[in-house]
Amino acid sequence: MTSARVTGSVSTNGGASMRTLAADLSGRTGGEATLCGWVHRVRDLGKVCFVVVRDRSGMAQVVLEANPGVTPESVVRATGTVVANPKAPGGVELQAKVLEVVSPAAGDLPVPVNQDPEKLSLEAILDNRAISLRNPQILSIFKVQHTILAAFADHLRGEGFTEIKTSKLIGTGTEGGTGLFAVEYFDGKMYLTQSPQLYKQTMVAAGLERVFEIGPAYRAEKHDTPRHINELVSLDVEIAWIESEQDLMDLETRILATVFRRVREANAADLAAWKAEVPDPEAVARIPRVSHDEAREIVAKETGRKVYEITPEGERALCDWALKSAGIEAVFVYAYPRKSRPFYTLPAEGSRTHAFDLLFRGLEITSGGMRINRHDEIVESAKAFGLDPAGLADYLAIFKYGCPPHGGFAIGMERITQKLLGLASVKEASLFPRDRKRTRP
Amino acid sequence: MTSARVTGSVSTNGGASMRTLAADLSGRTGGEATLCGWVHRVRDLGKVCFVVVRDRSGMAQVVLEANPGVTPESVVRATGTVVANPKAPGGVELQAKVLEVVSPAAGDLPVPVNQDPEKLSLEAILDNRAISLRNPQILSIFKVQHTILAAFADHLRGEGFTEIKTSKLIGTGTEGGTGLFAVEYFDGKMYLTQSPQLYKQTMVAAGLERVFEIGPAYRAEKHDTPRHINELVSLDVEIAWIESEQDLMDLETRILATVFRRVREANAADLAAWKAEVPDPEAVARIPRVSHDEAREIVAKETGRKVYEITPEGERALCDWALKSAGIEAVFVYAYPRKSRPFYTLPAEGSRTHAFDLLFRGLEITSGGMRINRHDEIVESAKAFGLDPAGLADYLAIFKYGCPPHGGFAIGMERITQKLLGLASVKEASLFPRDRKRTRP
Repeated sequence: MTSARVTGSVSTNGGASMRTLAADLSGRTGGEATLCGWVHRVRDLGKVCFVVVRDRSGMAQVVLEANPGVTPESVVRATGTVVANPKAPGGVELQAKVLEVVSPAAGDLPVPVNQDPEKLSLEAILDNRAISLRNPQILSIFKVQHTILAAFADHLRGEGFTEIKTSKLIGTGTEGGTGLFAVEYFDGKMYLTQSPQLYKQTMVAAGLERVFEIGPAYRAEKHDTPRHINELVSLDVEIAWIESEQDLMDLETRILATVFRRVREANAADLAAWKAEVPDPEAVARIPRVSHDEAREIVAKETGRKVYEITPEGERALCDWALKSAGIEAVFVYAYPRKSRPFYTLPAEGSRTHAFDLLFRGLEITSGGMRINRHDEIVESAKAFGLDPAGLADYLAIFKYGCPPHGGFAIGMERITQKLLGLASVKEASLFPRDRKRTRP
Repeated sequence: MTSARVTGSVSTNGGASMRTLAADLSGRTGGEATLCGWVHRVRDLGKVCFVVVRDRSGMAQVVLEANPGVTPESVVRATGTVVANPKAPGGVELQAKVLEVVSPAAGDLPVPVNQDPEKLSLEAILDNRAISLRNPQILSIFKVQHTILAAFADHLRGEGFTEIKTSKLIGTGTEGGTGLFAVEYFDGKMYLTQSPQLYKQTMVAAGLERVFEIGPAYRAEKHDTPRHINELVSLDVEIAWIESEQDLMDLETRILATVFRRVREANAADLAAWKAEVPDPEAVARIPRVSHDEAREIVAKETGRKVYEITPEGERALCDWALKSAGIEAVFVYAYPRKSRPFYTLPAEGSRTHAFDLLFRGLEITSGGMRINRHDEIVESAKAFGLDPAGLADYLAIFKYGCPPHGGFAIGMERITQKLLGLASVKEASLFPRDRKRTRP
């Protein structure tokens, strides 16, 4: 162990060719290694100084004879000998010969990176997003999200679904023009889509039969709650030749089993950081399925109150009931009243529909259902909802020229991430969330 | 073979439980089967009538004693006996006992579905997108695109990249505010992003080091050419700890080898429909890498003209030259002049940059390069490009608080699809393309 060379110079040479990741350091015990990463913490004990270096794989301890005077978050490259030390994280440490400061960090970090993020307000976290994301626990949210995205897509590809990418700029809204953000489009106006609904139905009817899309969706709603954001990523599914909404709940059950299994396998450390438990993939098959009427009765019984609509409080009561009765905090609610669902929803007996929601840990994370596939019926329904069929001509063509029975659903990426990790606000599960006031970073 | 029962009734029962896909029919020879799909073609020979049924797997011939009077594109369910017939597509046919019309198609199809799409104009195809997409050859474009999306993501996950989803609504533009679509955002204004550039750099600097994003990007440009659309899907990559743009070209080479291999494996029939050849994945490693100055000399030599900038004609000449000299119609051009690249590009000697493009079959399908990672240098560069550092404060924070050397690139999803299949216009490779005049469907 010699004293470290500290330079303020910035190199464009990343040193990638010789680099060892923190997680791989123990495999080089007794040899030389170069760590590249951020200074997570400096502990100066006088005769020896420990610099904890953080990289994408984890953290490793670098030992120096003298305090190199580096600020937290500075990017460094440290070269030295890897020595076993049972007290060091990972059981090894790097006794540094050289510590080069590749990119120095200013000393006035707007939020601390190496402390418990629960001490920070949501505002501080989001206002300083570029820095707060460096906190390993906060960053771990997006490692879990990465797994959710991959598992969702892989599962559907395995069931013969085709991934589609549809326009987010539309002429009018799926639900009639309210709640849309307008875009100045050359000399005219377009709108940001609330959902790829009409397009995914178009692609089912175009012959793909089974499609999925991962893309942004927009809601120009003034809500500012822990469950709302104005821009979200929607995990959308649509499938033909199904018999009822039960088939859709079966499909979502299979998707969730894959997602839960993959997150458990890939993100054990991230889950531990949040003290989060992902449900047993086997338990997903036990998620109760109750009609909207039954759901109201359950909520009334559990809360001791009269229930007309299922409020957020009711959603929590239903999930508590499901945990007690089925061992999983989730419940499918189907047969929603027609008035609460969009015009393309397939009606069922008695002013009910073939629509469903999935509630998970007290929050609706999915909405879906069977769709109307008869031309006369969809035209009638559009009119009943106050929509002009002429404005929907492109969409209505899919029914005019032969459309199989079909249905689908959408899972909110941020909401499922939030609920898997137990985050207080859905905004924490969006890298750069947008709400009425939050337009940056 | 009995005469068919034809009904006009629409069933919500999709019959999925008993269904056989067209591609699987031969496996049921001698037994009963039910086909579900669209009527692709009806051939009435008097004593016998052939109905070709199309589903997501392909086509199969249904034989009936009498013409069922179904219109093309009607959705039907046919049940009968599977009989070997060497003359039928796939070597088998379904001798129908029942043919049910699940959803009848009107007789006035706006564009034919079962004919060679090359007889249709681009306008007819795009104006009637919901119907033209039913043409198997047109639909096959998006089966190839599905493979490209999956191969891109799978490859990067395999190299330790994290998938991110960033906001498409930004306060100002990456390149200074021109070419942006404005969004009416509550009481203020936001803009649709041209690129996730600043966000992917933020996520590299936040500790992920290696990120990718698949998402929409917007260009408010008035171009109306076969190579421009106003909304595209960008396949974005960013990586830290690289030494030069050569590392980025190496990475893109590996990605393209995976994409080409997977498309060849999964989409042989789709490629055949377009008479398209995907380059040998092995040949990708031979893509020439030339500096911008060398590229200009090559173009001058090939075209016999003086060359100041590399025009679309020059891009074609370079790809022709690459085919002759390396056996692949692709070329990396690096060391672009500084004035032609964005402010975050890492400068090199002599007013050059560490930026590159990939030209493929005469078209730029990728733009990328090393980025500035020094705080003083990026502030200086922003100013030199007429940008206000105060408006970039969130972005500049990533450099102020420690940023490793990094770079990245973006592949246009529609452009790579177009060039792999040899499509005349990039608009054909977008499900619902947007241009200055095209705002529907």
